[in-house]
Amino acid sequence: MSEAKFQQAAHKLLVIPGPIEFSDEVLYANATPGTAYTSPAFIPIFGDCLRMLRKVLFAEERKDNQPFLVAGSGTLGWDAVGANLIEPGEEALVLATGYFGDSFADCLEAYGAKVTKITAEIGGVPNDEEVIAVLKEKKFKVVTITHVDTSTGVLSPAAHLAELIHTHSPSSLIALDAVCSVASEEIQFDKWGLDVVISATQKGLGAPPGLSVVMVSGKAIKTLEERKSPVGGYYISWKRWLPVMKAYEEGKPSYFATPPVQLIYALHASLTSILSAPLSDRFAAHQAASAYIKDSLTSLGLSFVPLHRSIAANGMTAIKFPPGLKAPDVLPHLAEKGVVVAAGLHKAMAGEYFRIGHMGITAVQRERGDLEKVVGAVKEVLSK
Amino acid sequence: MSEAKFQQAAHKLLVIPGPIEFSDEVLYANATPGTAYTSPAFIPIFGDCLRMLRKVLFAEERKDNQPFLVAGSGTLGWDAVGANLIEPGEEALVLATGYFGDSFADCLEAYGAKVTKITAEIGGVPNDEEVIAVLKEKKFKVVTITHVDTSTGVLSPAAHLAELIHTHSPSSLIALDAVCSVASEEIQFDKWGLDVVISATQKGLGAPPGLSVVMVSGKAIKTLEERKSPVGGYYISWKRWLPVMKAYEEGKPSYFATPPVQLIYALHASLTSILSAPLSDRFAAHQAASAYIKDSLTSLGLSFVPLHRSIAANGMTAIKFPPGLKAPDVLPHLAEKGVVVAAGLHKAMAGEYFRIGHMGITAVQRERGDLEKVVGAVKEVLSK
Repeated sequence: MSEAKFQQAAHKLLVIPGPIEFSDEVLYANATPGTAYTSPAFIPIFGDCLRMLRKVLFAEERKDNQPFLVAGSGTLGWDAVGANLIEPGEEALVLATGYFGDSFADCLEAYGAKVTKITAEIGGVPNDEEVIAVLKEKKFKVVTITHVDTSTGVLSPAAHLAELIHTHSPSSLIALDAVCSVASEEIQFDKWGLDVVISATQKGLGAPPGLSVVMVSGKAIKTLEERKSPVGGYYISWKRWLPVMKAYEEGKPSYFATPPVQLIYALHASLTSILSAPLSDRFAAHQAASAYIKDSLTSLGLSFVPLHRSIAANGMTAIKFPPGLKAPDVLPHLAEKGVVVAAGLHKAMAGEYFRIGHMGITAVQRERGDLEKVVGAVKEVLSK
Repeated sequence: MSEAKFQQAAHKLLVIPGPIEFSDEVLYANATPGTAYTSPAFIPIFGDCLRMLRKVLFAEERKDNQPFLVAGSGTLGWDAVGANLIEPGEEALVLATGYFGDSFADCLEAYGAKVTKITAEIGGVPNDEEVIAVLKEKKFKVVTITHVDTSTGVLSPAAHLAELIHTHSPSSLIALDAVCSVASEEIQFDKWGLDVVISATQKGLGAPPGLSVVMVSGKAIKTLEERKSPVGGYYISWKRWLPVMKAYEEGKPSYFATPPVQLIYALHASLTSILSAPLSDRFAAHQAASAYIKDSLTSLGLSFVPLHRSIAANGMTAIKFPPGLKAPDVLPHLAEKGVVVAAGLHKAMAGEYFRIGHMGITAVQRERGDLEKVVGAVKEVLSK
C-alpha cells in the first residue's frame, strides 16, 4: 500500500460539471447502515425513487413508461440502449454535439449498430436541413440526441429535434442522453414523445455517482419484446430488470442483482428535496445561476464554447481561456483558492477551455454563495 | 409519490449473506463530500484500493495481474467474463453448486458461449471424475467455479478444482465467482493460477453495494488482446478500463466513465481495516464465527444445506427449517427481535431453509456480540 493516508483534506468547492456538491441530507442518507434490499424499510424507498423520477421527467402521462435504476455509471445507459434496442446490423443516427455524442456512437457500434453521425460544428447544434435530409435517406431504428454535451456545454434543442424526428421518421426510437441535463434542464418525456432518457445521479439529480438512471417508453419496451435476436448482454438486459422495477414500485421484494442500497437512499433524499418545490422554479434557478456565471465571466472579457447563449447549457459553462493562458495557468490556482473546476475535454480543443458546473444546490441554494465564490476566484486568478 | 416517508427505523442487525453490517468508518467514508474523480486527493485513494486488492487476493506475485473497480453490482463481473473472454460459439464449462452457478451460465450464453454445466447435487460439490471426464471431452475457453454459492452456502474446493483444470485442460482460463468469498475465505490468486476473480463490495469486503470488483491475470488480458471478434460490450470492456486502472495506480488522472467516488472511499476504509491485521487472522476469525454459528444451531437440532462441514462456507450458513416450519413462521419473528436473516433462494428448495451471513465486522469484531444475538434470537423463536 502506498503512503497515501485516508485524510480528508479541507473540502474544496466542487464546481465541475459533475459530480457536484451534495447536500448534508444526501450525504447522511448515503451513510445509511447496512440494509437488506428486500427490507420492508427499503422497498418503499426504491419505489418512491421510481415514482419521483416519473415526476422529474414529466413521464407520468404514458402509464407504460418504465424507469430503471441500476448500479453503474451514466455510461451504462448507452449500453442499455445498444444492448436492448439495437439488433446487429440495424441503423442508428447519432446527433453529436461533442465528445459524448462521439462516444455514444462508439458504444452503439459495439452492439452491432451501423451508425450515421451528424456532427455539429464545435459549439453548435445539428443543422435542421442536414438532419431532415439524413432522416429521409434511411430508416433508423434509433436516433440519439445529447441533451447537454458535457464536453462543450452545448444544450441541444431536444424538443425541436424530437419533433423533426417524429415528422420525418416516425418509427424511429428517440434516445436522449440527459446525463448532464436531468433536473437542471426541463425534459418533457411524454410531451416530446421520447423513448429513452439516460442519466446518472451525480449531476442535476444531486446524489453521489454510481447509479444509472434510465426512463423507457412503452414503445421501446415493445420493440425490445419483439426483437428477433437475443439481447446483447445480461446485466444490462431490461427484460431481467423489468420485473424487479415493477415489484419495487408495487411494494414487493424482488431480485436480479444487488441494488446499491445506500445510493438509492441518497437519491431518495435528493429527489424528495427536488420535488419539494415546483420544478419550474428549479429550472428557473438553474437559468438564473447560468446567467449570473455567464454575465460575470463575459464582463471579465471571457467568451464561451457554445456559439450562442440560446444553445448554452444552464447547468454548466464551457469557457475559453484568454489568449496566452492554458489550464495549468488557471486551474491549480483556482484549486488553491478552494474552487475545483474542470479542464476541457473535447479532443479538438481540450487545452483551450475550462468548465464550471452550476447544478443542484450550487444553483438552487444561492444563499450558499457558491457562484459568487467561483466568480471571485476566477477574477482574482485571471487578474494576476 | 407514495406516503412512505424517509424515516430510518431503529437499525436491525443485518446478518444476511450480503449486504452485511458496515463499520462506522466505512459509512463515514461513504459520506465523503462531492469530490472530483481527477482530484489529487482522490487519485491515491483509488490507487490504494487497487493495490490493496492485490494483497487481499494474494495477487502480488504475477506483476501483470490487473484489478478493476467499476460501478455496478457483482453480477456485472459475469458480464465482464462473457464480454471480454468469450467469443461467440466458444465453449465454456460451468461448475455449478447452486443458483449463482446457473445464472453465471445464463450470462455466458448471453455472450454467445456454448455452455456445458456440471451441476452438483444440492449441498454438494462437483464430482472429480465427472469434471475430469468433461475436461477431456472438449476444449473449454473458460471454466467457471462458484467459490461460495450464496444460495446453498456451499464452499467449493477452489484450489483443488483449479489444479484439476490446470492438469487436464491447461489452456482454459479459470474464472472464480468469489462474490461471497473475497475477504471471508482465503483466495490465492497467483498460487492457484486463477485468471479471473469476480466479486463485489457488500460482503466480505465490508463496503456498501454498487462496486464490481474484478482481478484479471496477464494470461486473460492477453487472450482479450488476441480475440478476433470485437468485445461484446462497451461499458464492460476491459480494453477501455485498462488505461484508467493503470493511471490510477500510477497516481495519474484518467477517464472513461465516472467512478463511484464515495464507494471507492468506503472500500478504501474497509480494505485499510482488513489489512491492518494478518489476513490469516481474518480467515481464522471467519472460521471461528462459522463454527460458533454451526455448532450452536446444531445443538438446537438444526441441520444445514451443505452435505458436509468441510464444504460449508465460513462467511454464511444455510439452515434447514425444522419439520413443519416455513419462512413466515421464523423470519418475521427474528426481525421483530431486531435480527434480519435471509430466506432460501435455491429454486428447488427455496421454502425449506434460511440463510445467516457472518462476514466482516460481525465475524471479526466478536465483542459486538452479533453472533450471540443471532443465536439467541433463533433459539427463542424456535422454542415458541
